[in-house]
Amino acid sequence: MKNAIAPTRSENFSEWYQQVISHSELAENSPVRGCMVIRPWGYGIWEQMQRELDQKFKDTGHVNAYFPLLIPLSFLQKEAEHVDGFAKECAVVTHHRLEQNADGTLTPAGELEEPLIIRPTSETVIGASFSRWVQSYRDLPLLINQWANVLRWEMRPRIFLRTSEFLWQEGHTVHASSEEALGETLKMLDIYERFTVEHLAIPIIKGEKCSWERFPGAVSTYTIEAMMQDGKALQAGTSHFLGQNFAQASDIRFVNKEGVKELAWTTSWGVSTRLIGAMIMAHGDDDGLVIPPLVAPMQVIIVPIVRSGQDAEAIHAYCDKLQKQISRKRLKGQNLRVSVDKRDMNGGEKKWYHIKRGVPVRVEVGIKELEQSTVSYSCRDNSKKTLNVEMSSFVKDLPKILQTIQSGMLESARKKLSNNTKTATTLDDFKQAFKRKDKLNTFVLAPFVDDEKVEKVISELGVTVRCIPLAQPKVAATCLFTGQLTKTWALYAKSY
Amino acid sequence: MKNAIAPTRSENFSEWYQQVISHSELAENSPVRGCMVIRPWGYGIWEQMQRELDQKFKDTGHVNAYFPLLIPLSFLQKEAEHVDGFAKECAVVTHHRLEQNADGTLTPAGELEEPLIIRPTSETVIGASFSRWVQSYRDLPLLINQWANVLRWEMRPRIFLRTSEFLWQEGHTVHASSEEALGETLKMLDIYERFTVEHLAIPIIKGEKCSWERFPGAVSTYTIEAMMQDGKALQAGTSHFLGQNFAQASDIRFVNKEGVKELAWTTSWGVSTRLIGAMIMAHGDDDGLVIPPLVAPMQVIIVPIVRSGQDAEAIHAYCDKLQKQISRKRLKGQNLRVSVDKRDMNGGEKKWYHIKRGVPVRVEVGIKELEQSTVSYSCRDNSKKTLNVEMSSFVKDLPKILQTIQSGMLESARKKLSNNTKTATTLDDFKQAFKRKDKLNTFVLAPFVDDEKVEKVISELGVTVRCIPLAQPKVAATCLFTGQLTKTWALYAKSY
Repeated sequence: MKNAIAPTRSENFSEWYQQVISHSELAENSPVRGCMVIRPWGYGIWEQMQRELDQKFKDTGHVNAYFPLLIPLSFLQKEAEHVDGFAKECAVVTHHRLEQNADGTLTPAGELEEPLIIRPTSETVIGASFSRWVQSYRDLPLLINQWANVLRWEMRPRIFLRTSEFLWQEGHTVHASSEEALGETLKMLDIYERFTVEHLAIPIIKGEKCSWERFPGAVSTYTIEAMMQDGKALQAGTSHFLGQNFAQASDIRFVNKEGVKELAWTTSWGVSTRLIGAMIMAHGDDDGLVIPPLVAPMQVIIVPIVRSGQDAEAIHAYCDKLQKQISRKRLKGQNLRVSVDKRDMNGGEKKWYHIKRGVPVRVEVGIKELEQSTVSYSCRDNSKKTLNVEMSSFVKDLPKILQTIQSGMLESARKKLSNNTKTATTLDDFKQAFKRKDKLNTFVLAPFVDDEKVEKVISELGVTVRCIPLAQPKVAATCLFTGQLTKTWALYAKSY
Repeated sequence: MKNAIAPTRSENFSEWYQQVISHSELAENSPVRGCMVIRPWGYGIWEQMQRELDQKFKDTGHVNAYFPLLIPLSFLQKEAEHVDGFAKECAVVTHHRLEQNADGTLTPAGELEEPLIIRPTSETVIGASFSRWVQSYRDLPLLINQWANVLRWEMRPRIFLRTSEFLWQEGHTVHASSEEALGETLKMLDIYERFTVEHLAIPIIKGEKCSWERFPGAVSTYTIEAMMQDGKALQAGTSHFLGQNFAQASDIRFVNKEGVKELAWTTSWGVSTRLIGAMIMAHGDDDGLVIPPLVAPMQVIIVPIVRSGQDAEAIHAYCDKLQKQISRKRLKGQNLRVSVDKRDMNGGEKKWYHIKRGVPVRVEVGIKELEQSTVSYSCRDNSKKTLNVEMSSFVKDLPKILQTIQSGMLESARKKLSNNTKTATTLDDFKQAFKRKDKLNTFVLAPFVDDEKVEKVISELGVTVRCIPLAQPKVAATCLFTGQLTKTWALYAKSY
């Protein structure tokens, strides 16, 4: 049987990824290099992700605010590592108007005294506000989140994974003590983990970044790393313990209970539209997108099948009734999201349209179903295909069917992660793990020493240190690259 | 009695406005001229507005998408009036990285071949996508909305009213016929009207803009105009019928049912964070903000009053119980939003904190209320202040109390609008209406001819044509400025 997406995953994973995005109408490249247009289907997934994450942030005491898009150059310079990290990829605004030339073309005019950059991240501009808002220990902790667009000029853009402009949330918090700030950093990492596992059905490895993979200016960076179907790693979210570096840079101080002025402790954490890329590559198949039900903008699509001479009106009315009943059912506190596709197209075309877009459950209703008060349905993860099941029992079972798809997807992703994770204690084993005949990649657990020599050797193999997992084997071993004895193990992988 | 805000509205309305924003912690100016920081309380109001508007858009078949922040210069030039309208206020990106000088300062580097502008509005960049998405009549209507930040360089910035960067939604739709596009334009105007009246409790005048007040590139622009408490007008939302101008510029064509290629018809419509400014100036009083309950991030605040020696724990527990009960009650399909303020501050300070922030209902619970199972409460609009009402009956009545505040606020704003609207049929009457002894301004209905001579005369009086109301007096009269006989009447006012 022919698949809807060419090439298939095993033929060319990278091209398959682009084709899925295009066939499922998730997004497209824009005329500005590196920037994307997120189409309604892709944005609908983002809205589901936002809703769930936003609720989790609010449940843990965070509030949303909004800070300016533009940042003065002088702000960026306040933290030395920060400016080094971002200077190479900043969009710079230098003028504030355009003048029309005689030939009708436009020239920038009104040069600014100080150029402005479009935020690549907002620590510095948010810090300026925080230094005003925080005066006393009573103002702490300050727990703020922002949903925003950011811009980091990308030389090798890839839709959802590395785009110059992307959408994200960035949390920024201020605390009275180091312990509390570190606690917040790890709490938010746990929220990211729960969301990724429970809603995106993607298992992750939680860990700390090594020194050269840290966020510029952070004391420590924590990450959740996910495995894509080609065995490569994708950094799905990060949470940074910033120590007092940014508090110092922005002068965020508070008077403690004893009346003494102290420097505060800050954190920041974020996930982005990159998660959509993770979802595509973790679950998609050779027929297109497969969306986990909990984040699907539409969980059920009802397709009326009307053959010539049949009573279209009656079939449509039956579909409407079905939709109404389904939309009253609930899954995890939300009403089910369901539509009827009455477009004037042939049934096969419609079927493939929804398969490629990854709608979790597709219901088909023809004259037979109408006459017998039944439905026929298929689950997008191929777990189930049932003809002529009684309508009322189907509606009743639907939340369970969706929940089963959701858990099945997580289970299947967990198996892939587990099957493709190896332990290496010799350099040979290590190298072998990245030269598999099936062209898949491997996650490798191996001893680790935080020494830039390691980076040099592994980067020649195209491999990076993904993280030092929070769950450690607790056995000493010899670092494969420096020969040093160490108790620390790291996760190594090729990555996006 | 002293008021919380100095100066008062009658002393200096403009300075009162700034002070309300500052005391209620809605927003603050950022270090980048003309850009604002929307603080959590202000953003919370925006979230309520977004939720309601987004639902209304979705209920009428619109879906959200996201388009790039950056627009190539060449795009802006595609529509001649459009470029004239926006060229003078565009932030221009000319470089894509920064280089560090020997002294540590930064210089823009990596000059772009073609400069990019930050979107002032997105017709041109969205048009580029629409020209790909629209192929056949089957693809129409295309009903898209975007929630985004935009930037228009402001020389005289004013927080929420005119900021260089602001947040908004911009709807963009494509239709097969002129009638349908015009219908959409007016349908969205109606949605804006309903939202502004029902949720913001602000009455509006609906009408069409005159030629020189039109959106650059539109065939016709419709507006909702609201009266602020100083009698000035604020344009609260606009909806544009773009005819085929932008379809032509972006080449949006479709094959009709007869197989013939046709140029499409488009619309665009938007409201912004300016609505927060409208809300402040329509309802605020000399003690600060007054928020209509339906858009209040917190509708009820419970303030425990614990005097020294009293059982704080018992009073707090009583407040928690009250909060739990209130949060289960519903208003317009939403659970009530309620908090307990347990901060370590004196009662008077807390009380004024919430008054200035405009929380609709403030409940006070002290030892007396605890002992008698009662509450004492005040409505922020001063409509009601009740001591020792039985707790369970208060909880039961709360949705009605909030609904009464909401309607009372609309009623009061309606009276102000009606009292300050005059009809003028002579130039003397017209001039007199803008020179009132009480320093308030007036909305003036007067005959109108769409002739730029009119603009010249009235602009000398500091007056603008707000709109040609959809509801017309239907009597002929003489234009006060051109002497021409006309059946058209316009709304004239000083404006923000």
